[in-house]
Amino acid sequence: MDDVSDDAPVVVAYQTIQRKRDGLELEAAELEGFFRAYGAGTVPDYQMAAFLMAVFFRGLSPAELAALVEVNLRSGAVVDLSDVSARKVDKHSTGGVGDKVSIPLAPLVSCLGVAVPMISGRGLGHTGGTLDKLETIPGFRTDLSLAEFRRQVAGIGSALIGQTGEIAPLDRKLYALRDVTGTVESIPLIASSIMGKKLAEGIDALLLDVKRGPGAFLPELDRALLLARTMIAIGERYGREVVALVTAMDRPLGYAVGNALEIEESILLLQGEGPPDLRQLTLAQAAEMLVLGGVAASLDAGQRLAEQALADGRALAQLRRIVEAQGGNPAVADDPALLPQAPVQKVVEAERDGWVAEVAARAIGEAAVALGAGRATLDAAIDAAVGFHITAKPGDRVGRGQPLATVHARTPAQGQAGAAALRVAIRIAGEEPAAALPLISHRVTRAGVAEL
Amino acid sequence: MDDVSDDAPVVVAYQTIQRKRDGLELEAAELEGFFRAYGAGTVPDYQMAAFLMAVFFRGLSPAELAALVEVNLRSGAVVDLSDVSARKVDKHSTGGVGDKVSIPLAPLVSCLGVAVPMISGRGLGHTGGTLDKLETIPGFRTDLSLAEFRRQVAGIGSALIGQTGEIAPLDRKLYALRDVTGTVESIPLIASSIMGKKLAEGIDALLLDVKRGPGAFLPELDRALLLARTMIAIGERYGREVVALVTAMDRPLGYAVGNALEIEESILLLQGEGPPDLRQLTLAQAAEMLVLGGVAASLDAGQRLAEQALADGRALAQLRRIVEAQGGNPAVADDPALLPQAPVQKVVEAERDGWVAEVAARAIGEAAVALGAGRATLDAAIDAAVGFHITAKPGDRVGRGQPLATVHARTPAQGQAGAAALRVAIRIAGEEPAAALPLISHRVTRAGVAEL
Repeated sequence: MDDVSDDAPVVVAYQTIQRKRDGLELEAAELEGFFRAYGAGTVPDYQMAAFLMAVFFRGLSPAELAALVEVNLRSGAVVDLSDVSARKVDKHSTGGVGDKVSIPLAPLVSCLGVAVPMISGRGLGHTGGTLDKLETIPGFRTDLSLAEFRRQVAGIGSALIGQTGEIAPLDRKLYALRDVTGTVESIPLIASSIMGKKLAEGIDALLLDVKRGPGAFLPELDRALLLARTMIAIGERYGREVVALVTAMDRPLGYAVGNALEIEESILLLQGEGPPDLRQLTLAQAAEMLVLGGVAASLDAGQRLAEQALADGRALAQLRRIVEAQGGNPAVADDPALLPQAPVQKVVEAERDGWVAEVAARAIGEAAVALGAGRATLDAAIDAAVGFHITAKPGDRVGRGQPLATVHARTPAQGQAGAAALRVAIRIAGEEPAAALPLISHRVTRAGVAEL
Repeated sequence: MDDVSDDAPVVVAYQTIQRKRDGLELEAAELEGFFRAYGAGTVPDYQMAAFLMAVFFRGLSPAELAALVEVNLRSGAVVDLSDVSARKVDKHSTGGVGDKVSIPLAPLVSCLGVAVPMISGRGLGHTGGTLDKLETIPGFRTDLSLAEFRRQVAGIGSALIGQTGEIAPLDRKLYALRDVTGTVESIPLIASSIMGKKLAEGIDALLLDVKRGPGAFLPELDRALLLARTMIAIGERYGREVVALVTAMDRPLGYAVGNALEIEESILLLQGEGPPDLRQLTLAQAAEMLVLGGVAASLDAGQRLAEQALADGRALAQLRRIVEAQGGNPAVADDPALLPQAPVQKVVEAERDGWVAEVAARAIGEAAVALGAGRATLDAAIDAAVGFHITAKPGDRVGRGQPLATVHARTPAQGQAGAAALRVAIRIAGEEPAAALPLISHRVTRAGVAEL
């Protein structure tokens, strides 16, 4: 803090903060200069932290938002996939419990002729991360270089990697700061962060899965819709079509919560099995991406294409190809028992007759973290094998003693603790409960919001 | 930013920020722990910056405010003036242009039997600072130790020093951060900062001069009144009576703006002369402090006592004593020509017949900074001699060619620039202007707000 006041850029930064604080609109040049100076280390963390909190309260105008996306995007490499003739479509989920859709989706869509260059994240808080799940496949590498990434997308149509230091490094620095300064839950900051990265991937179009409900980062429907509209508007400025589905995150998606367990469930889905809700959401997303990718003329046609690719094994074969290309053991696609297995399994049974009134996604996500399946801090290690397999769904009629779930744990004590957590999270009521959130409730496009 | 997330106190800090951001009330222990950790360096600047911006938007509850005052106060030494039998009363002004009242006020009040332990600040932005003015007196030391300060207050009844590292060091660190993060203009932060320091001085009571109008830090009357009420409430918790006067800062106070020029004007006042507005405000403040100090039974009685002490030279003699005790040349009290003199004087005349519609305090303060009388950054050097002597007051009838002001400058070019700035800041209108703000408009006590 010493002598900051005689440093010219700091004086400018202070005025930029004040203007945002007072609700004035910043010129694009001012906002970009401020963020670039932060990336270069001239504007210190404490000034950016104050600015981000002011944005939390004041929001960003459309022009400010566009400027922030641009500076995030241009802070690093922009992947050139122009030698891939297929249209490039990615999918982004705002994150949920049991949300493993990306894993079956990438092979399913890419085996049908749409390129899927996918850069995913790690789990944080109560939600899992695609990278953590993929890395439970023996040998699987998520740290491809951008050159390897580009080659694999060109060669087999899809690659699944983590954010590298080359893509949107400013966003990475900003995200780390937001995470410790209470400025994560801001729609313009979320939207500019996601879109800055996704535009840098070299995609033509993007499908968004915006979760809502108590297990989502933005629980309220109006906030979920606002995020969807904000990201669609950013896409429009860059000539990229963005479509968003608003989906339920009051209960986990599918049965499996936990890294290797979710890979196993993804493989089952590609084998033509798997939980109905996971299948329904994966097919709906695949249909959207096939339309965005110009392979299907309608969502119905896309859905039929995707169903066929599941039924005839093409999607599973494509998973084998991706796993093999990224150094993993492709035999896992036929024998999920090759994945890490937890030594302890403990079944949780219904303690009374009744209806399943709630399968609380957030509590289950937090219990999975406690088991070791997730991380409380960014650099914590995770246990690949542990987690839950919860077959109970809201609205199910159950009888006392009926199995609801299985805990996969490292030790018997952890198994007990996990079971105790599930007994609270899975609430059985004596009367038929109100309906849970519809799995897919809204579809948001440039044309507006359609309730499904 | 690296590895912050695995540091336990940071995780707590992040939750404290979020709770404040979301409008929840913090427990005193949580808030005090957060600020103490900041003082100790465990909570980094960037988390405090985000927190302060959240406070800007959410405010502080009375209990939170009390906790923040307490932690500021207890972060350093609390001066023990219990061996001074007189009641100890200080005065604080929120800052203005030409506001030199503290300089005649301290000798005037202390010569009448009320102890005045005064810790003042430096000028920043467009406003001057008492310390900078005092230091233009040859030899005058403002950096007394707390022991010297205590001895002088006990010996002659008053001492005027700067904030030392011993008094409220946490507030000092916070203020430096607020200054560069756009979080200065927050009423609970201002109130807790001032009161934390003033309570540490060992005072029994405090008079506040809350400036309002375009040249004040809080221009709006409702904000000025809220600050007054907030500080009175804090005083009440500590058993200290606080009284506030709301006074005008649309035009400068008195004629002189500039460090040595303001000392000269203060001496003139103590000699029984000086501008009428400065005399009126100084006498009103003296009367309040004499009542707060138990020496006068009423404001009228206090006013009469103060008028006598000006008339018979006791106040001027007390200034001599204070100057001598602090190492300065006491002869300055009789011969202000001993103060630094600027080599260039340039008279500014009215360019037309009319009425003085505006003498814009903020513009004049900024022009004084440009001349060298103030500092744009905390460690800039100031020119003791330069400034303005502006006799024109809003509402004055003036004729073309009539002198309005004199610029005291280091060089002819600076004299020209200063004159040009005054010609804009002193606006002459063809018709009689609306009345300026009343010099003293409101008196705020525990009993409420009285309009004067």
